[in-house]
Amino acid sequence: MSELSKEVQVVSNILKANDLLSAELRREFKSKKVYVINFMGSPGAGKTSILESLIKELKDNVKMAVIEGDLYTSKDAERIEKQGIPVIQINTCGGCHLDSTMIKQLLDNFPLEGLELLIIENVGNLVCPASYDLGEEIRMVALSVTEGDDKPIKYPAMFQRAKVVVINKIDLIEQTNFSIEQALGDIKTINPGLEAFTLSCRTGQGVPELAQYLLEQIKKKENVNDA
Amino acid sequence: MSELSKEVQVVSNILKANDLLSAELRREFKSKKVYVINFMGSPGAGKTSILESLIKELKDNVKMAVIEGDLYTSKDAERIEKQGIPVIQINTCGGCHLDSTMIKQLLDNFPLEGLELLIIENVGNLVCPASYDLGEEIRMVALSVTEGDDKPIKYPAMFQRAKVVVINKIDLIEQTNFSIEQALGDIKTINPGLEAFTLSCRTGQGVPELAQYLLEQIKKKENVNDA
Repeated sequence: MSELSKEVQVVSNILKANDLLSAELRREFKSKKVYVINFMGSPGAGKTSILESLIKELKDNVKMAVIEGDLYTSKDAERIEKQGIPVIQINTCGGCHLDSTMIKQLLDNFPLEGLELLIIENVGNLVCPASYDLGEEIRMVALSVTEGDDKPIKYPAMFQRAKVVVINKIDLIEQTNFSIEQALGDIKTINPGLEAFTLSCRTGQGVPELAQYLLEQIKKKENVNDA
Repeated sequence: MSELSKEVQVVSNILKANDLLSAELRREFKSKKVYVINFMGSPGAGKTSILESLIKELKDNVKMAVIEGDLYTSKDAERIEKQGIPVIQINTCGGCHLDSTMIKQLLDNFPLEGLELLIIENVGNLVCPASYDLGEEIRMVALSVTEGDDKPIKYPAMFQRAKVVVINKIDLIEQTNFSIEQALGDIKTINPGLEAFTLSCRTGQGVPELAQYLLEQIKKKENVNDA
């Protein structure tokens, strides 16, 4: 058997094992009534800044916590900690994505009781995290205008399985050749059901709208679970 | 044996196989006197734009070609083709990095004779491509100021094995909180030998300096090979 076919076989086994465990996580999140968001995007797309803005908008209305995924540092977790909500760091030691084993191990020391919203910030990477289900309710992708409007079509898997896309750094759009029309056109081709928000963490534009949308989703889910 | 240890073992076999083949590629590039650059960076760091700028500066002085790595599209290769130099596209079909098998297979139909410079633009990803040697002479990393100055410390492997870092989109630095001093300080801690260039593809600032540096490296190498 060649190295390549061994790789393909093992990757397929790994993904299968991940999916079994993520299904278990999903049941656990559901039974504890926690709405879980798997938040992804390129390095530097502004995921942590978006989280900081969202926490300010949401924390008085929703009991929330954050899991921060990063290769080695805890820089992002330190930023979130300053916002006064529970945060826990996962270091992947060079690994390019979070997987459900990492989340499962961590939940043993991270009580979900009473939480309404858990946001998992994944490793900055537009490719690998898309393959690993973490038991989330929805996936949210950050795409900054400085990255270029060709990213959805170049990294389609990331957008295919997402529910929300946040087009970030909109205050810089005049300094780029990013076309919202082009990006949204490609995104809707890849995934017609994707909800799109434009946002600037610097000016605050779009933050209340995204926060409101997430709040409605969480409340809607709580009502379904209560029914 | 757990899924995780199987994964680790197979990944280590894959990397070993990759290194054997990349050593072969390195000998082939050397015997054909081609200077090969493995060019990496996040999605949207501006790799293709930097290439367009470099080609304009270099193509009259150096016989050059480009290999474009991308998941599915040939958008970047089409942009390079317009610059009037040979370009070939590798699609990884969702894969998160180029490896030496892909380069080897492609070289059967891509004659190196007479070439002085071959630039391989890797998949946009600050994690996985760092582990895969392609037989290159040097690695060059693009980091745009809009990504934030914490990226070197958060993704150290990418910077550890590079020879050149290009800090791109320098025309936008006033609109960000990117500190050149911070980024360069971290970069020098990770890799003291790294050559750093600041650059803007929009204004052209820094392009001649980077082109001149690469030209000198290529000529120096040619002289060593001739000696």
